[in-house]
Amino acid sequence: MQWWVWPLIAVIVSLASFAVAAYFYSYVKNMKTDDSAVAKWGKLIRQGAFAFLKVEYKILAKFLVGAAVVIFLFLPPVWTSSNIGMNFLNAVIYLVGATLSGLAGLLGMSIATIANVKAAAAAQKGITPSYMAGFRGGAVMGIAVVGIGLFGASILYLIFHDVPEVGNIILAFSFGASSLALFAKAGGGIFTKTADIAADLTGKVEFGLPEDDPRNPAVIADNVGDNVGDVAGMGADLFDSNIASIAAALVLAAPLGQTGYIFLLGALGLLASLVGMYFSSVKEGQHPGRALNRSTYLTTALFFVLTLIATLASGYNLRLWGAAMLGLLAGTVIGFTSELFTSDEGKSVQHVAKASVTGPAFTIISGFSYGLLSCFPALIGIAVAALGAYKICEPLGPGYALYGIALSAVGMLSIVAMITSNDAYGPIVDNARGLAEMGGLGDDVLEITDQLDAAGNTAKAITKGFSIGAAGLTVIALLAAYQEILVEIGKPADFNLLDPLVFFGVIIGVAVPAVFSAMLMMGVDHNATRLVAEIHRQFDEIPGLREGKEDVLPDYDRCIEIATVGALKELLPAGVMAIVSTFVVGFIGGVRAIGGFLAGNIFSGLLLALLMSNAGGMWDNAKKYIESGNFGGKNSDAHKAAVIGDTVGDPFKDTAGPSINTQITVVSLVASLAATLFAMFSLLG
Amino acid sequence: MQWWVWPLIAVIVSLASFAVAAYFYSYVKNMKTDDSAVAKWGKLIRQGAFAFLKVEYKILAKFLVGAAVVIFLFLPPVWTSSNIGMNFLNAVIYLVGATLSGLAGLLGMSIATIANVKAAAAAQKGITPSYMAGFRGGAVMGIAVVGIGLFGASILYLIFHDVPEVGNIILAFSFGASSLALFAKAGGGIFTKTADIAADLTGKVEFGLPEDDPRNPAVIADNVGDNVGDVAGMGADLFDSNIASIAAALVLAAPLGQTGYIFLLGALGLLASLVGMYFSSVKEGQHPGRALNRSTYLTTALFFVLTLIATLASGYNLRLWGAAMLGLLAGTVIGFTSELFTSDEGKSVQHVAKASVTGPAFTIISGFSYGLLSCFPALIGIAVAALGAYKICEPLGPGYALYGIALSAVGMLSIVAMITSNDAYGPIVDNARGLAEMGGLGDDVLEITDQLDAAGNTAKAITKGFSIGAAGLTVIALLAAYQEILVEIGKPADFNLLDPLVFFGVIIGVAVPAVFSAMLMMGVDHNATRLVAEIHRQFDEIPGLREGKEDVLPDYDRCIEIATVGALKELLPAGVMAIVSTFVVGFIGGVRAIGGFLAGNIFSGLLLALLMSNAGGMWDNAKKYIESGNFGGKNSDAHKAAVIGDTVGDPFKDTAGPSINTQITVVSLVASLAATLFAMFSLLG
Repeated sequence: MQWWVWPLIAVIVSLASFAVAAYFYSYVKNMKTDDSAVAKWGKLIRQGAFAFLKVEYKILAKFLVGAAVVIFLFLPPVWTSSNIGMNFLNAVIYLVGATLSGLAGLLGMSIATIANVKAAAAAQKGITPSYMAGFRGGAVMGIAVVGIGLFGASILYLIFHDVPEVGNIILAFSFGASSLALFAKAGGGIFTKTADIAADLTGKVEFGLPEDDPRNPAVIADNVGDNVGDVAGMGADLFDSNIASIAAALVLAAPLGQTGYIFLLGALGLLASLVGMYFSSVKEGQHPGRALNRSTYLTTALFFVLTLIATLASGYNLRLWGAAMLGLLAGTVIGFTSELFTSDEGKSVQHVAKASVTGPAFTIISGFSYGLLSCFPALIGIAVAALGAYKICEPLGPGYALYGIALSAVGMLSIVAMITSNDAYGPIVDNARGLAEMGGLGDDVLEITDQLDAAGNTAKAITKGFSIGAAGLTVIALLAAYQEILVEIGKPADFNLLDPLVFFGVIIGVAVPAVFSAMLMMGVDHNATRLVAEIHRQFDEIPGLREGKEDVLPDYDRCIEIATVGALKELLPAGVMAIVSTFVVGFIGGVRAIGGFLAGNIFSGLLLALLMSNAGGMWDNAKKYIESGNFGGKNSDAHKAAVIGDTVGDPFKDTAGPSINTQITVVSLVASLAATLFAMFSLLG
Repeated sequence: MQWWVWPLIAVIVSLASFAVAAYFYSYVKNMKTDDSAVAKWGKLIRQGAFAFLKVEYKILAKFLVGAAVVIFLFLPPVWTSSNIGMNFLNAVIYLVGATLSGLAGLLGMSIATIANVKAAAAAQKGITPSYMAGFRGGAVMGIAVVGIGLFGASILYLIFHDVPEVGNIILAFSFGASSLALFAKAGGGIFTKTADIAADLTGKVEFGLPEDDPRNPAVIADNVGDNVGDVAGMGADLFDSNIASIAAALVLAAPLGQTGYIFLLGALGLLASLVGMYFSSVKEGQHPGRALNRSTYLTTALFFVLTLIATLASGYNLRLWGAAMLGLLAGTVIGFTSELFTSDEGKSVQHVAKASVTGPAFTIISGFSYGLLSCFPALIGIAVAALGAYKICEPLGPGYALYGIALSAVGMLSIVAMITSNDAYGPIVDNARGLAEMGGLGDDVLEITDQLDAAGNTAKAITKGFSIGAAGLTVIALLAAYQEILVEIGKPADFNLLDPLVFFGVIIGVAVPAVFSAMLMMGVDHNATRLVAEIHRQFDEIPGLREGKEDVLPDYDRCIEIATVGALKELLPAGVMAIVSTFVVGFIGGVRAIGGFLAGNIFSGLLLALLMSNAGGMWDNAKKYIESGNFGGKNSDAHKAAVIGDTVGDPFKDTAGPSINTQITVVSLVASLAATLFAMFSLLG
């Protein structure tokens, strides 16, 4: 089969996916809404979300241009480069990667802040139209994330397939996406918790306002936060993982002449997702969670069959297919394990709730303990998938074994359109629930939106586990790709654990995700202090605000701007720390130390990400479990203890935990792109 | 120089150290006490401590015999062994190692529970005699830990130096010590927190009794707990690390013919410590913390000079000395960094205290964040020490580089007698403070014991950091020793991170310390529930107890027994999990997977141990900082929040955090001893 067949098919499927997305977009947009209260609130949230994006993209643009200049000048050092054009190209493509990822985020936010209003309004007519608004809104995001990424990667590959540096080009594209993800995910994570905490501390605690009271200047920022973190952030993260897995696989596949298979998986995964999405719906009386799962099962089954047929028809070895399927299986297992640990039907959440009866310290200790335990199955899943994929592909010849690991990552991520779609559904219906309440749509409507919302929470837990697992396998593949790049630049190296440079790198690498997450959590604290000051200022300076005079509204945008600028300001040192550590380790220990450094990042990053995400999820659901009437119910001592646990869990699960993925990917890509630099200049390497 | 010179000198110095210990012991024991109230309480604590040891050693004995049988039968499999006598010898020496370590613990507990009474009583005469009682009591423990270990290792080496398996013999000795340490440290850690929590929950919260009220059946268990965890536990841990570092170094030194240098370091380290201890004292008006530091400085300086002279005089290469000194330097840096992060004069503790004003969730978040940050300098210290020691010794020839890492561990641990001594001083004067209060010795006395106690807390923080750093370098050396053993059994292997078996091992290895510490923390919870039930039973069934009738005392021993048996019962599954994981990984992935597994244990173990120990220390001191009048002082909201932080920190810093060291050492030794087994039987290796 010609090399261009599958990349071309991938382009065609991406284009088709855009058509489907356009259809879903107009489907949702054209749904009739006849409730102006809901629409009014919805508009404020939408404006706020765009205000956030505007500020974010403005700051980001400066960073990106700076990074592009660095790429041009140093990766590899332009004065030693035989091909300055390639440096320039990489810098441009870096910007393209960031722009496309930003575009996906923009589209996703745009539809999410339309669909939430539609879902709320449609709930008046029943669960079916409301579900459709939520699900198809989420699907637009899912398609945008995967379609745009696949389109970009395929086009780039079609254009540059015979340039020797094609691997680097795709890595630069991926690095662009990662840079954006770092801002969207970690910056969004700081933003959302800043707004949440500041709104609570001033509104609820200080001024005694109810939740979501419009007099609170941070109320819109708080609602915007959900979209920012869960829609744009998670989308950017999965965009990033998806492209990074493709980039790593391409680097490893190029010397084997097996690149087509990556596009086969990508194209058919997207296709299967489109079909699954198209047929997703829920009937009156049905459980929306089941509907979400049904679509996922349909997609998975379809993907399984389509890829099997395509593998046989295109003459690829079935072992490649086996590696991809093993990855998919591992992703599913990790996702469902996360759900098991964080679901309120699971033992661990109930134990955490029970421990809360003794007091908040016991809420924390038990949640933390179960969080540590929850790492075990997920890590076993990743270890087994990596080992299995390697062993499956090993008989195909040298180089295939590591390619197998990369394919397991690609396989796991191939149905990511469906996963992202389910995930984006969550904050949309969550927002819809809030809008229904604010707009006073009545209890029947709330019952429906509650049902939809509960299904969203489960989907979210699964996605989180899935995205950590995917990032895990992806960065392993990136490590292998890094080694391949070292071969290409003529500096082949092993990463032997008892090589002191490797060991040195690993130990420093282990520390980086810990420090990174600490800096993010501290950033939330600093930023919340700023926002609290602004809220006080508004209450002091805007006449009539405190008294709740009609038509006196606070300056919501100013709060959003402060929270946004502050979030990015707090994020920057953390991001810089991670990148600077990479350069310090590289310039001290050279390419082998960097290999160890990447591995160390993976080891502690996976551990901390799983711990923090799962412990946070448990505390959240333990609180909800108590609120639903267990161990004394709302306002009991157990509930108060659980609220403290939940507050601790917020930055764990929404700021630090899920941002670690992105940090590791960024570091891995920087290391790969800077490999030549470290090979040329290092103290001990 | 003859091979036997330095081992013989080590034996002589050990014997001399026993004489010094005997002198200190009788010095303390013969101090006059004339306060019967203090003596009465002291006797109860002493009885309780021995009751704990009795139960612990009884259960331990069964475990040890079982383990010895396993060693005899399987390490290596007796049916394949050409030398069954060696299997038998290893099993016996394993028991000897455990017995000697147990003996050191017994001696330490014995003197600690005498010295506490003496220190309390002596405080009536001034700070000098009280300090001497506390310090010389601690010194007996320090000498017992190091002298007995060094004596055992030197004698074994003198006897078996020409047996090819001498490395294995010393490893078996070390494994015996580690098994005991696992029980003493982790079991003691569960015990002490069980007693603490149960006593507080029933006494303070439920029945409204003051702290240390004799009606509380768990009050003696609570006081015993301090001795059990901080004296016997820490002693066993450092005994274990010290012997393990010597064992690893011997394995690496044997092929180089450089074993003597290890005994040189051990002997001179102990000698320097003896001198430092002998001259330690404090004058009226002096700061006892300074006195502790002065002794440490004196020991360190003496060690530096003595080893330099001895190295030159014995004709050893100065590079070996350099590696050892680098280790010592790193240990000091790590110790002082820990202190910086956990001292109430440091920024982090004050920030945690300040965050407590906003509420307990912020106490937890900020303590956890600073805990994560605190890992950075310590990990850098370990990484730099390992890399530096390797590079210093690399020019000496093949094999020397890894030996250099082992020497840095030995060097770091060589002054461990002094460190242990300072550490054991802490709980002695802490107990003395309690006894002075219970015995009603008045405010002047309390002022003195408070001063002594504060100095103990600082020493404790330094020791904790030091012991984690030492364990870190030791297990790296054990990893290198493991590789050397693979060479010896004819199965040389590299641990390449991109070898899927190694990677598989690392990922599973990363999970084990997380699961281990989770199981310990959950164990505290389960065990406390049992003890609470017993306390309720006693209040219900012992007539007059609740009313505080004179001469009606609760059954203290029953509480101690329940807490002890329960602690060991909770510990067992955690220990078994760690060991079974080792075998599962070994039987699946073979010797290379085990190499990765050990490394993974080190990576996450170091991270979690540092995080938990330091975060726990910060919460403890943040509470004390507030109690000393900051942010509203005692009983303010900030104080309540800080108490919650402290309660979370208790199992972090006293149960899980410091036990991880021992878990890693045990796993490393099991792996080394079972290397032949994994080389023979494995699914994929």
